[in-house]
Amino acid sequence: MKLDKYTTRVVIDRVYPEIDGGRFPIKRVVGEKVVVEADVFADGHDSLFAILLYRKSTDPVWVEVPMTFLVNDRWRASFFVNECAPYRFTLMGMIDAFQTWRKDLKKRLDAGQDLSIELRIGADLIEDAAGRASPLDSPGLQEWAGSLRSGAVSEASKVEIALSEDLSLLMTRYINRDRAVVYPRELEVRVDRERARFGSWYEMFPRSCALVPGKHGTFADCERRLPYVSAMGFDVVYFPPIHPIGGTRRKGKNNVPFAADGDPGTPWAIGSKKGGHKAVNPELGTLEDFRNFMSRAADYDIEVALDLAFNCSPDHPYVKEHPEWFSWRPDGTIQYAENPPKKYEDIYPLNFDTPNWEALWEELKSVVMFWIEQGVRIFRVDNPHTKPFGFWEWLISGVKEDYPEVIFLSEAFTRPKIMYRLAKLGFTQSYTYFAWRVSKSEFIDYFTELTRTEVREFFRPSLWTNTPDILIHYLQTGGRPAFMIRLVLAATLGANYGIYGPAYELQVNQPRQAGSEEYLDSEKYEIKHWEIERPDSLKDFITQVNLARRQNAALQSDWSLRFHRIDNDQVLAYSKSTADLSNVVLVVVNLDTCHTQSGWVELPLAELGLPENEPYQVHDILNESHYTWKGSWNYIELNPRTYPAHIFRLPSRARPGEPVRNPGMRKQEAGEAAE
Amino acid sequence: MKLDKYTTRVVIDRVYPEIDGGRFPIKRVVGEKVVVEADVFADGHDSLFAILLYRKSTDPVWVEVPMTFLVNDRWRASFFVNECAPYRFTLMGMIDAFQTWRKDLKKRLDAGQDLSIELRIGADLIEDAAGRASPLDSPGLQEWAGSLRSGAVSEASKVEIALSEDLSLLMTRYINRDRAVVYPRELEVRVDRERARFGSWYEMFPRSCALVPGKHGTFADCERRLPYVSAMGFDVVYFPPIHPIGGTRRKGKNNVPFAADGDPGTPWAIGSKKGGHKAVNPELGTLEDFRNFMSRAADYDIEVALDLAFNCSPDHPYVKEHPEWFSWRPDGTIQYAENPPKKYEDIYPLNFDTPNWEALWEELKSVVMFWIEQGVRIFRVDNPHTKPFGFWEWLISGVKEDYPEVIFLSEAFTRPKIMYRLAKLGFTQSYTYFAWRVSKSEFIDYFTELTRTEVREFFRPSLWTNTPDILIHYLQTGGRPAFMIRLVLAATLGANYGIYGPAYELQVNQPRQAGSEEYLDSEKYEIKHWEIERPDSLKDFITQVNLARRQNAALQSDWSLRFHRIDNDQVLAYSKSTADLSNVVLVVVNLDTCHTQSGWVELPLAELGLPENEPYQVHDILNESHYTWKGSWNYIELNPRTYPAHIFRLPSRARPGEPVRNPGMRKQEAGEAAE
Repeated sequence: MKLDKYTTRVVIDRVYPEIDGGRFPIKRVVGEKVVVEADVFADGHDSLFAILLYRKSTDPVWVEVPMTFLVNDRWRASFFVNECAPYRFTLMGMIDAFQTWRKDLKKRLDAGQDLSIELRIGADLIEDAAGRASPLDSPGLQEWAGSLRSGAVSEASKVEIALSEDLSLLMTRYINRDRAVVYPRELEVRVDRERARFGSWYEMFPRSCALVPGKHGTFADCERRLPYVSAMGFDVVYFPPIHPIGGTRRKGKNNVPFAADGDPGTPWAIGSKKGGHKAVNPELGTLEDFRNFMSRAADYDIEVALDLAFNCSPDHPYVKEHPEWFSWRPDGTIQYAENPPKKYEDIYPLNFDTPNWEALWEELKSVVMFWIEQGVRIFRVDNPHTKPFGFWEWLISGVKEDYPEVIFLSEAFTRPKIMYRLAKLGFTQSYTYFAWRVSKSEFIDYFTELTRTEVREFFRPSLWTNTPDILIHYLQTGGRPAFMIRLVLAATLGANYGIYGPAYELQVNQPRQAGSEEYLDSEKYEIKHWEIERPDSLKDFITQVNLARRQNAALQSDWSLRFHRIDNDQVLAYSKSTADLSNVVLVVVNLDTCHTQSGWVELPLAELGLPENEPYQVHDILNESHYTWKGSWNYIELNPRTYPAHIFRLPSRARPGEPVRNPGMRKQEAGEAAE
Repeated sequence: MKLDKYTTRVVIDRVYPEIDGGRFPIKRVVGEKVVVEADVFADGHDSLFAILLYRKSTDPVWVEVPMTFLVNDRWRASFFVNECAPYRFTLMGMIDAFQTWRKDLKKRLDAGQDLSIELRIGADLIEDAAGRASPLDSPGLQEWAGSLRSGAVSEASKVEIALSEDLSLLMTRYINRDRAVVYPRELEVRVDRERARFGSWYEMFPRSCALVPGKHGTFADCERRLPYVSAMGFDVVYFPPIHPIGGTRRKGKNNVPFAADGDPGTPWAIGSKKGGHKAVNPELGTLEDFRNFMSRAADYDIEVALDLAFNCSPDHPYVKEHPEWFSWRPDGTIQYAENPPKKYEDIYPLNFDTPNWEALWEELKSVVMFWIEQGVRIFRVDNPHTKPFGFWEWLISGVKEDYPEVIFLSEAFTRPKIMYRLAKLGFTQSYTYFAWRVSKSEFIDYFTELTRTEVREFFRPSLWTNTPDILIHYLQTGGRPAFMIRLVLAATLGANYGIYGPAYELQVNQPRQAGSEEYLDSEKYEIKHWEIERPDSLKDFITQVNLARRQNAALQSDWSLRFHRIDNDQVLAYSKSTADLSNVVLVVVNLDTCHTQSGWVELPLAELGLPENEPYQVHDILNESHYTWKGSWNYIELNPRTYPAHIFRLPSRARPGEPVRNPGMRKQEAGEAAE
């Protein structure tokens, strides 16, 4: 007879957050709060006591936080993660004999019942606790127990002792844990640095940065571009692969199968005689030039993100050194990349299933470690969904063990479950479907899923207006307003967003052919010379939007996003706010690139800390205009030809009129906004 | 380096049904279907193959069912459970190299590409499969592989072979399972007999069955009551405890603290010198009389349900034999039952936490086994939530190991999570909040939760119009219509329902005091003499309703319940149907006991198998009236003074006009209705 498993009385259930039964960690950044809820209950009518336990994974000792009872057997507690390191938490629940007794004693007292025996039972409970108490607290408990038993103490005094808060607190401290139930799983929190939550990315091809048209740009040219990028307010510069490019079957302009003389090829066809994933394309400069660029970028508070594209050109050194890392066809050739009927003959995929896979995986990890040693801490990972899930889990967890500050951005545009799986497996951030969300209801549905469901615990969205592969139809046809609208949306719906420039600020909008999302004369296959100072550039507008992001903590995290009602399907309204409401931002966007749209937007006044019956000032950060509003419903009107969007700062509840402090000071608040 | 856990490519996730990560079984009855769904996906673009595996737990061999791809990485398959025994299921997923190749070959063919090397790759795949195939199938596969390689076969013929359905089927049969991923859990199905899904219960006090007023009824008297109960259409008779009743601190009429001479006491104060839980109250007869009653009941196709009330009167033999099974107070007395400030001094709770708990638990199990040996197979369990969860899990799983046909009904009226937990732990059926659901929106919300969410997988509702403890206000004030309305609701919303009679059919509606749900002069504390032939009895109405249940398979299970729109808040409309729509029942109930109510009810014609453009006949089974309806919206009007409800049989899609067959013939269909 095995009865042991049946003798625990407390149930701990429906723990939140818990991803796939604890198989995967939740994600936070340093300074953020983890709010934990669980059902905790037992048979019978006993009072319960529940504890949240947490620790940094390397700490041996749990920190305990008593949980608060909410309603319907639900309990809650929270803790802050203050280091960029993995944390763990679990829960414990137990019967609270003293509180059960105390609750009943009150009822008996109110009913005028005889309490003498009950007080003796209480004395026993207190004496038991005294036996568990520290030498500091034990004598006091003993004394209370004695008083409850004493013939010389009046019943009224005994009841006063029995029901005192002091006694209650001590009894909870020394509660009997002999039959406490510990939740069977320890749940992990992966804690990243702040950049994981908030960043403005600028993707650019270094080879297109030369001062002279037609010349191959270098890292030194890129340095000269830094003031321009920095002035716009970006803090991450992301380079497509910077490695030697293969010559065999190199693609020509507009992706034609054979390159003309002087065509540079696509940077994603990595590897030539000059080296592979650990080498730098000599036309861009040397490894030292790259390091110099990084350190110049750091002077502008800009980080450099590299591209991890784990596939090879036919000229990659791996092909000769490790032919077994590729798939071979019956005709003795290596299998090139294909998505039938499309062929990518300039690219050989690696065969992750090769019998020699362990050596391959280790080599690929050593690529990441190589760039980490050069100082790189952000990687944008190319097409991770075409490599094994297990590879990424192994690689990322291995890297983060030594370098927890490294950020991996998943560039998977594929089915939702696969995108979410990659995020669970360890990717710090993920590309999203943002580019293909165009209508009001699409935005509301998708961003509600990303910010109000369990998804937010493991999937950190990165919103891109465009990429070298993605020029959406809306941008092709909507003119300048379309570029302004999509920029505001990306930069305010997402704390992490990016643009591929200078194509974006210069509003490049010609597709290779009708119906395609590919750029005509794509930079993927040729060197471009961008007239970045063209007067119609959106750089000043971008600067304003990025400034709004820097100055408003509300825009620096995602979870506070709320959509608001407005009686016009062409206008989207939403707010973000810090937990203390010291910073509340309302964004209203006209999605119609052609016509002025107007409507009445409804704000939940109490939720946003706005006054019910007095007027209040709203301040449009984009064009520095001010409006006086009153009540829940206010009128807005947006002309796409001038400003297609408002980014309003609403009055702060905390200290009305006070300017918003430096965002660097507000880490904690931003963390709390994420509740 | 431990890489093993990272090398599987297929993910199996979000399996449904799976209760609390597989901690608890789902429930079915014999003949029902288990529909299983899961996310199955992998990295890359390979085709997948997924299998549902199931077996009776005692069978060593899994039965395999290929799963069907639905959409968005979701797969589905199903199986039937045909024995009253535990079943298990799990899943398996694998990369399907042949189907991947075949899919790509079609694309290459359409694009007019050279296929020669692809066909050689295909030949290799087929040859591999031949190596795994049975001696029957291997030569054929070898031959096909040879043809794909042969110089003498035209490419067109090779393609025809490669894409043939025959080859495809064989290749799936002999798919390479070397790297198949097996879902890490085996999920259990607890399969009960049909009575667990469909039953009409009649609760009665045997001591009130005497022919002569004031006399203590006996089992022999109960036998004489059987034709009456059977004629009404009930198939389970449930007796409150039939054991000797304690004398010490016996309660008098209306629960006064001290009994007068001749007061019989409450049957739940179990145990006296004449015996405890394994004894029969001699005033009711002998154990043999009880067995006789059971066998007479069986002649009427009626089963007997006993009450398991695991507590003791102060006179119970356990008190002397096992004082250690009770809680002792500091004054040397045994702790009586309490819910402060209420005291139940005629009842001692057992102390399930006693150091000697193993002996206590075994003894209580032996009580169940004793009654099983007498032939009892249904137990209504009194207040299970005041005994340890683990005790019930242990007891029920132990009993069902040898007697899988035993049914345990949980009488827990407590917080939702505790009621659901008890169901998960093993109770076959559960009392519900039905009694306290009164308004239209309450019914819709609650029964949607019970029949359209995961709850239905483990919680089988039993709906009671009344109990000796529950006389709801609606019945106290609503007169005869209220009793008719609540009966129809219980009997048609729930495939399992019960009444406490004859109090119900005689419409007893006086509470002990205003605001109380207790009966005045409750049968719990005194012997009643019921005038069951009183002309105003509802017995004929109950007979009609139970007949409708017997004749309509749609009413014999719960999952097909759908509420329908009707533009009147006092009128509730819902349907139930068999999976093949051969039986569809529409119930329309006027919830207003005072006034005639009317409205237009909307039916989803296609879903219910009704014609779009032709008139159709609906047949009210309660009063044998017929109406001709047309289209989605039809008018109904219900007068509470005559018939406050319609129970319509709608035309059957399967064979219009044919009478509904014997429900015993329809097990399978009822099972399918449960999808």
